[in-house]
Amino acid sequence: MSNFEIFSTDCRSAARRGLLTTPHGKVETPVFMPVGSAGAVKGITPQQLEETGSVLVLANTYHLLLRPGIEAVEKAGGLHKLMGWNKPILTDSGGYQVFSLSPLAKIDDEGVEFASHIDGAKIYLNAEIATRIQNRLGADIIMCFDQCTPFSCSDPQLKKAVERTMQWAKRAKEAHNNPDQLLFGIVQGGIDLPLRELCAGELVELDFDGFAIGGLSVGEGHEDMIRTVSGTTRVLPEDKPRYLMGVGTPADIIAAVKAGVDMFDCVLPTRNGRNAFAFTGAESGPLRLRNSAYINDPSPIEVGCDCYCCRNFSRAALRHFFNVGEMLGPILVSLHNLRFYQRLMARIRQVLKENKFAEWAEEQLRK
Amino acid sequence: MSNFEIFSTDCRSAARRGLLTTPHGKVETPVFMPVGSAGAVKGITPQQLEETGSVLVLANTYHLLLRPGIEAVEKAGGLHKLMGWNKPILTDSGGYQVFSLSPLAKIDDEGVEFASHIDGAKIYLNAEIATRIQNRLGADIIMCFDQCTPFSCSDPQLKKAVERTMQWAKRAKEAHNNPDQLLFGIVQGGIDLPLRELCAGELVELDFDGFAIGGLSVGEGHEDMIRTVSGTTRVLPEDKPRYLMGVGTPADIIAAVKAGVDMFDCVLPTRNGRNAFAFTGAESGPLRLRNSAYINDPSPIEVGCDCYCCRNFSRAALRHFFNVGEMLGPILVSLHNLRFYQRLMARIRQVLKENKFAEWAEEQLRK
Repeated sequence: MSNFEIFSTDCRSAARRGLLTTPHGKVETPVFMPVGSAGAVKGITPQQLEETGSVLVLANTYHLLLRPGIEAVEKAGGLHKLMGWNKPILTDSGGYQVFSLSPLAKIDDEGVEFASHIDGAKIYLNAEIATRIQNRLGADIIMCFDQCTPFSCSDPQLKKAVERTMQWAKRAKEAHNNPDQLLFGIVQGGIDLPLRELCAGELVELDFDGFAIGGLSVGEGHEDMIRTVSGTTRVLPEDKPRYLMGVGTPADIIAAVKAGVDMFDCVLPTRNGRNAFAFTGAESGPLRLRNSAYINDPSPIEVGCDCYCCRNFSRAALRHFFNVGEMLGPILVSLHNLRFYQRLMARIRQVLKENKFAEWAEEQLRK
Repeated sequence: MSNFEIFSTDCRSAARRGLLTTPHGKVETPVFMPVGSAGAVKGITPQQLEETGSVLVLANTYHLLLRPGIEAVEKAGGLHKLMGWNKPILTDSGGYQVFSLSPLAKIDDEGVEFASHIDGAKIYLNAEIATRIQNRLGADIIMCFDQCTPFSCSDPQLKKAVERTMQWAKRAKEAHNNPDQLLFGIVQGGIDLPLRELCAGELVELDFDGFAIGGLSVGEGHEDMIRTVSGTTRVLPEDKPRYLMGVGTPADIIAAVKAGVDMFDCVLPTRNGRNAFAFTGAESGPLRLRNSAYINDPSPIEVGCDCYCCRNFSRAALRHFFNVGEMLGPILVSLHNLRFYQRLMARIRQVLKENKFAEWAEEQLRK
């Protein structure tokens, strides 16, 4: 039986609406995953997270491996218990973090040795280890260990990284030993479409439960990103979920849905929320709530928003909380931003259902 | 009509169970007030606060005067709107903060000039100004502006402070211009019982809506504090609420209820919560959750506790959150500690209702 069902496909774009089934519940797609790298979405309790409309949450192998360690997660009753989240979880393999957080990484075809960014301890990860760790963590969806390259890397480096990513995907697939967990392959290749196609083709052969597009949103810009996404989804199977990793702004998400992507994760709602940056759907754009313009502003962040923050707090109150360093500021704006993202995804699913996605997306992207 | 009704008085102690009526709702006593000095209980949303069983919350004139300023609170719709809390609020007058946070205070019989601990700006407060500010903030219960003395102050200094506190109480009573707000007098006098009696007697003459005992829990120790509280409540009218300011530990609260106190506020549940210190009712005492003893501990902070934290998170998870600096650690342990305090108060009210308070209190204080 398939884990992914497509309800409808937009007639004027590659967008689709579907349902992903996992051991901890069903997930309507397109879906946005809040990021809880170390087992917690920053400042947000699972109860609050649920109230934002979030269903699937991301955690990270690299962070959890460093602290508290895989054995500690197991002894604490597994990842769902540790996080207090009895709904679907996806763990990233740690590939991205090994390369972005550990400058001392020593890499060869076999795997990567790197130094913990916490205490410098030497750690070794490869396709098999990252997969078995994720088997032990017990997330509903797990990812292949891949080699990420910076945007600025040379063509031979990029090609080598793609080759390794393909080899490692094969090894991950073989190592994977928990049939309840969905295993996704990750397509790499920078913004080089032939390389992306090569990588995607190889992964499709391996028949993963889903396919991620990694290594984007690293400085290439919106146009190149969307062009690469479109080119990649085109060679991915229709009947499997597609996940664009670490993306992105509302505009990125709308354009990527249009290009056929089903799943997203990004730190923007929470990271920006902690920095007093509030997303709104208004023409006037986002608010920077430390601005003294809001000292006496009795209106909510966004009129009509149904989030806990907008139902209970004024811009004046939020500005005050940030100004005096009260934790409620970051908490409340993170809540609003998460709800903003989930309202956006619900809207996307709704217009897909009503077969109005293309017009709607065009209008949104014009704004 | 009286704002305070006493349901029962313990036959073996001065403890009583009552109901305080305020414009924003009724408050069962003995009651514990979480502290939200600057308009927010640190890290806790009003929704979460309500779920801990909290009804009456404390905010502070001094903090709100400095930031965001009284006019800003008014323009934001008043203190209840700013805090997102449509239940009873008590504001302290700022007397304590002027003397504890501002070393540059210049005081005379008229009032106090002090420097903001934020930016050094000169600010002037006296009985009339502190009262009118509280009238404008709009809390349900407001406090007279008093002179607090450190535990180490000399007898003449202490006497002078009590004289001023009495004079200022009279002026505050005259300045008070919002009959919807209850105005409480504050008894000062260190641990000098005759001075306390003098001050209390004078305030009783002025017929306040309630009487606070200030200037304790400043280093005098549990025994001297309770002796002073007992001696003070003895000269306060039976039919008015009594509030012991800034107190205290669970043992302090139980002993003070026994001595006839109805209301408490303290930063301990939230401050300790932020520092990974969790109160429990267990014989083994509180937990310090950064301790590596909890790395693999799958049990909640306290078995049987009905708080959100204990229902959803293990000690192992909390230890991990503190270890990696996730905000969820401080948030969850603050929630537990607040619920612990509110369960304690509910238990106190219950044993008072069942006329078993004295035995229960003795047993608790023995522990």
